[in-house]
Amino acid sequence: MTDQSPRILLNCDMGESYGAWRMGDDVHAMPLIDQANLACGFHAGDPLTIQRTVRLAVEQGVSIGAHPSYPDLAGFGRRHLSCSPEEVQALVLYQLGALDAFCRAAGTRVDYVKPHGALYNDLVRDDALLVAVLDACAAYRKGLPLMVLALADNTRELALADAADVPLMFEAFADRAYLPDGQLAPRRLAGAVHHEPQRILDQALAIARGEPFPDIDGNPLRLRADSLCVHGDNPESLAVLRRLRGLLDAA
Amino acid sequence: MTDQSPRILLNCDMGESYGAWRMGDDVHAMPLIDQANLACGFHAGDPLTIQRTVRLAVEQGVSIGAHPSYPDLAGFGRRHLSCSPEEVQALVLYQLGALDAFCRAAGTRVDYVKPHGALYNDLVRDDALLVAVLDACAAYRKGLPLMVLALADNTRELALADAADVPLMFEAFADRAYLPDGQLAPRRLAGAVHHEPQRILDQALAIARGEPFPDIDGNPLRLRADSLCVHGDNPESLAVLRRLRGLLDAA
Amino acid sequence: MTDQSPRILLNCDMGESYGAWRMGDDVHAMPLIDQANLACGFHAGDPLTIQRTVRLAVEQGVSIGAHPSYPDLAGFGRRHLSCSPEEVQALVLYQLGALDAFCRAAGTRVDYVKPHGALYNDLVRDDALLVAVLDACAAYRKGLPLMVLALADNTRELALADAADVPLMFEAFADRAYLPDGQLAPRRLAGAVHHEPQRILDQALAIARGEPFPDIDGNPLRLRADSLCVHGDNPESLAVLRRLRGLLDAA
Amino acid sequence: MTDQSPRILLNCDMGESYGAWRMGDDVHAMPLIDQANLACGFHAGDPLTIQRTVRLAVEQGVSIGAHPSYPDLAGFGRRHLSCSPEEVQALVLYQLGALDAFCRAAGTRVDYVKPHGALYNDLVRDDALLVAVLDACAAYRKGLPLMVLALADNTRELALADAADVPLMFEAFADRAYLPDGQLAPRRLAGAVHHEPQRILDQALAIARGEPFPDIDGNPLRLRADSLCVHGDNPESLAVLRRLRGLLDAA
Repeated sequence: MTDQSPRILLNCDMGESYGAWRMGDDVHAMPLIDQANLACGFHAGDPLTIQRTVRLAVEQGVSIGAHPSYPDLAGFGRRHLSCSPEEVQALVLYQLGALDAFCRAAGTRVDYVKPHGALYNDLVRDDALLVAVLDACAAYRKGLPLMVLALADNTRELALADAADVPLMFEAFADRAYLPDGQLAPRRLAGAVHHEPQRILDQALAIARGEPFPDIDGNPLRLRADSLCVHGDNPESLAVLRRLRGLLDAA
Repeated sequence: MTDQSPRILLNCDMGESYGAWRMGDDVHAMPLIDQANLACGFHAGDPLTIQRTVRLAVEQGVSIGAHPSYPDLAGFGRRHLSCSPEEVQALVLYQLGALDAFCRAAGTRVDYVKPHGALYNDLVRDDALLVAVLDACAAYRKGLPLMVLALADNTRELALADAADVPLMFEAFADRAYLPDGQLAPRRLAGAVHHEPQRILDQALAIARGEPFPDIDGNPLRLRADSLCVHGDNPESLAVLRRLRGLLDAA
Repeated sequence: MTDQSPRILLNCDMGESYGAWRMGDDVHAMPLIDQANLACGFHAGDPLTIQRTVRLAVEQGVSIGAHPSYPDLAGFGRRHLSCSPEEVQALVLYQLGALDAFCRAAGTRVDYVKPHGALYNDLVRDDALLVAVLDACAAYRKGLPLMVLALADNTRELALADAADVPLMFEAFADRAYLPDGQLAPRRLAGAVHHEPQRILDQALAIARGEPFPDIDGNPLRLRADSLCVHGDNPESLAVLRRLRGLLDAA
Repeated sequence: MTDQSPRILLNCDMGESYGAWRMGDDVHAMPLIDQANLACGFHAGDPLTIQRTVRLAVEQGVSIGAHPSYPDLAGFGRRHLSCSPEEVQALVLYQLGALDAFCRAAGTRVDYVKPHGALYNDLVRDDALLVAVLDACAAYRKGLPLMVLALADNTRELALADAADVPLMFEAFADRAYLPDGQLAPRRLAGAVHHEPQRILDQALAIARGEPFPDIDGNPLRLRADSLCVHGDNPESLAVLRRLRGLLDAA
């Protein structure tokens, strides 16, 4: 019963504007979350945007994570780029340091690393790339955690992270349908994304409590997650986020 | 007279390759210098090049400086870009952190900052930009020095650096002719660049000893410098660099 | 009196989205204008955005102009970059051809060239850059016009364009205050931008009719213009644009 | 037997410098070839480099082909980027038009399209991407040919090109070993690249004459090719190229 209390963090992608282009509603979403995944310049986030977003996170007491990406502004980091593990390790280090400079200047530091877009997805299937990202974390700072997708079985991720001496954080999604193994249902499948607020809140609370919830086939799935990935870039998602924040705080 | 011994460091721009494009001869020049100004990705230096060059500097016991630039790969950072001071401060921080990540991973850290190309030149005329770069240094790490051009009179630079609580390093050039005030003679002037090895060595030793040397008009000029900017990207410049290293070590 | 009829075209910057980032409301503004200045990829406009916008212009029977820029996505082409005339001529040619490829594929062609942002502003003060852009137009296609700022006196522009054998189009602004010589009042000056719809419509009609209107000091200024630069990126500017379109069509 | 005369063209990648970085030896190689595949800015080739190379090709009477790439300067276009067919069609059109602007300015035009690096390789396996590139060629100019890899059996390519109404050019390699089906042996295999000049010349002449030559297993392979891809970026490859040019001209 001690474990019934829904203790889970909320993380959100932030700092995804670029120069004159605006994206997201960081000002309104930041007070509602615990962890901000900050774009580092390769898919979004020019230096001034990074600086502004770091300051906003610090003001709101939100933990800052690096959100590194393949170098692809035009594709917003959503396209796979066939980099070698050495290249991936180096581009993660580069972005991690760049973001951390603004954290230092604001009196804080990067607390974790969560790869973005295609790079995030590639880590699920490619051991060498996952090791490359783990190596970048370990090389940057001993104990710097990597956030990865919570699966029904994370044995693979835990073994590789253990070998690299990198702590893991597991994240889950309240607004996405899951395959039976805990992979996200591909967006092209019908029902892959939940749109009804109550469904999202129910899945969020189930994950927060460590209770099972229905996968895409309706069968129970249980995920162990430290953090829920949320969105707050429009009035609808902000409304859901406010209710979720309220439910978690009340619990 | 105790100060007659030529104690001066040699610094060289390094890591200026980019992906498949090679520039410089870092492998042969690195053992001959004391300080390596490393490109940080905005005018040159992809992440793997940065990593490789940091490791080379560490192997050779060479101090690493950040060499940040305006964002301009096609122009190699040699074109002025009318950035606001806020933009300059942010783009220096970004590049400084990115480079430092590779330093951390190699067990060292960035020792100083020397802006590159057009940004370096702009600092001589624009107080707001100089303050922006000083602020970036101070924000990144207390005591991190900025390297600037040694002039006949550096009162302006010293006052602004003092206000920002940033130490300065002064650099001079052995292969460039000087205007009477210690500014570099513009390259479009005849005689702006020295090509004869002996002339370069003579000017280097004079600067190292704190002795006067002829400016572009033949009048004596005395500069107080901590470091000489050298080149080692072709067999001729490497030959001069080897002789200079020998002269300084013998002194 | 034969010249009293307000015959003037309306031009608008278009295609300024980039990848995942949206800018402008091209779908609603396109039917209201005569000429679309299309971003060519250097300050905005990834290839798919260009293609989509070209097709939209063709559907609406809108003339397509190239809107080339200094290469500066992060600064949206608003920052001056100290390019040589040779570089400017080459980067205009590059962007002009890139845009025209989509025009060809859509069965049309680029009708004119209007430089963007800092490059546009630089043409007013720098003869060599203006000649470089004129040369690019002439080299691309005999008779391809360049759109420049209508001034109280455009003798300089006309002389250089005549020498390059390039026709000029002159544009004016209905929502900007003017200096006595017909230069735009710098945005930092109070009253530099008109916000009241009636003021904007009055200035537009005066320019369309070739009649004088008050400059920033309240003195009468008369401009000879072929086209008015309008905006349609938000509900307010779209509303003004609809009224302006109606007034011009009724006249 | 009338077809025994070795009539084959020589094509070479050109214009692969970028800003301050030099690559290749275009000045010495250009007079030796028939077709220059010109980088279009996405993997190499800034606007001034493109302009200079176009002029060089025109001076030497060399046919100009577009050499479009995935957008990847740091990876020199050698890394696969998971673009949609729509994105590929648009990025080929963009680069094709950009290059052609310099051709127009020099009084010529793009004669064919040969994709570069990873994009070239992807066309062999991905019908949708090949169709996308064919569509770009057809949309740009009726009859504009696409150059693809000559295989033992090019039925697939011919069928798709026929449907798109695009002529094909087939190219072969004198310095690469072939798999039995006419695919290039992957570079990681021993013997994938020929280094002995005589071997290269023998394979070149066999291909030129339409005669069989040994594949990587030593079995005879016959390829129908219109053009041989050659290199001229260093003294060794230039020496081989000169001998090859002499042999073909003598035949």
